[in-house]
Amino acid sequence: MSGLFITFEGPEGAGKSTNLQFFAAALRESGCDPLLTREPGGTPIAERIREVLLSHYDEPMCSDAELLLMFAARAQHIDRLIRPALEQGQVVISDRFTDATYAYQGGGRGVAVERIAVLEDWVQGDLRPDLTLVFDVPVEIGMQRARARSELDRFEVEQTAFFEAVRRTYLDRAAADPERYRVIDASGSLEQVAAAMHPVITQVLEHWHA
Amino acid sequence: MSGLFITFEGPEGAGKSTNLQFFAAALRESGCDPLLTREPGGTPIAERIREVLLSHYDEPMCSDAELLLMFAARAQHIDRLIRPALEQGQVVISDRFTDATYAYQGGGRGVAVERIAVLEDWVQGDLRPDLTLVFDVPVEIGMQRARARSELDRFEVEQTAFFEAVRRTYLDRAAADPERYRVIDASGSLEQVAAAMHPVITQVLEHWHA
Repeated sequence: MSGLFITFEGPEGAGKSTNLQFFAAALRESGCDPLLTREPGGTPIAERIREVLLSHYDEPMCSDAELLLMFAARAQHIDRLIRPALEQGQVVISDRFTDATYAYQGGGRGVAVERIAVLEDWVQGDLRPDLTLVFDVPVEIGMQRARARSELDRFEVEQTAFFEAVRRTYLDRAAADPERYRVIDASGSLEQVAAAMHPVITQVLEHWHA
Repeated sequence: MSGLFITFEGPEGAGKSTNLQFFAAALRESGCDPLLTREPGGTPIAERIREVLLSHYDEPMCSDAELLLMFAARAQHIDRLIRPALEQGQVVISDRFTDATYAYQGGGRGVAVERIAVLEDWVQGDLRPDLTLVFDVPVEIGMQRARARSELDRFEVEQTAFFEAVRRTYLDRAAADPERYRVIDASGSLEQVAAAMHPVITQVLEHWHA
């Protein structure tokens, strides 16, 4: 029995967090108790960095600073929570991880992919998720859902073109590595999404019981 | 007339900040009005990151997260303040810059110099200070002065061996590039230190009036 690192990705309003709770409950019913976490955040210091990232400011935050803050929170998250849990053989499920950086800072803000890759290697070494679920939803539907939910943070106030680029980046990355990624159509009802996750849950449990 | 980027470096209690004020006043008397700033910090967002860096936490901050936070604040500082000022031909004086990262995170915490260099290049491109004053003081004297001054922050509570490594790193870096660095003996009186800075002030004014 070895640890398994699973990440949930997708744009605003794709229902990631709700689906993550459903996914985790299904694992628990079969005796596998996953560690649930999120990015940016996951530890007290990383959550403090999250506040800095999501706040509104009078000065614009430059894209390099934003990217370094993301990876600072991630370094702390990996060091204090993800790596120790994986070493103990746990299933770790994170609501967002580095794919979100490629999607938001890369696709959305236009930071060069190569610059992100330098920091990914610098921070993570060879740590990559074993499995990544990408919840895909047309931008208009996602934004309607996000707006209905709560006040928008510094990322959610971005324009449609930004979220189109985010979505495209997720889909491109998933297409390039079908071994690791599962694209889940998140435009339907919760029941439909749950059904789409079912084979992935089975696969995780098979690994877990092996 | 081109911009000039000057940094003031040195361990706790070396009198950096006081000497910086004296240095700046001497420039102003001769008609050169420098922009004074500090690290980590220098802009509202960078100062917010500074707070995250200097606070006390129940969990230890891992050295990678600390380093990335330092460079996040620096990226914002360069983008919003240092580079625009230099492009306008200003003399910019920063109380600490990347040499402090090499000294504290490299020398003090033992982060590999090569890892710091990757981030330095990533964030700064080819931006380096034109002139760096290193205020040197024996560790015991520096710590006595720092203790007498105020409550100690997360860095100042470190042990003597840490500050010996910080000091050694500053001196090694200065020795390796005498063109850029000036080591100022800061163990004496303010008058003595002011006298030691005099030739550097003259040099900056010559550049400024050229």
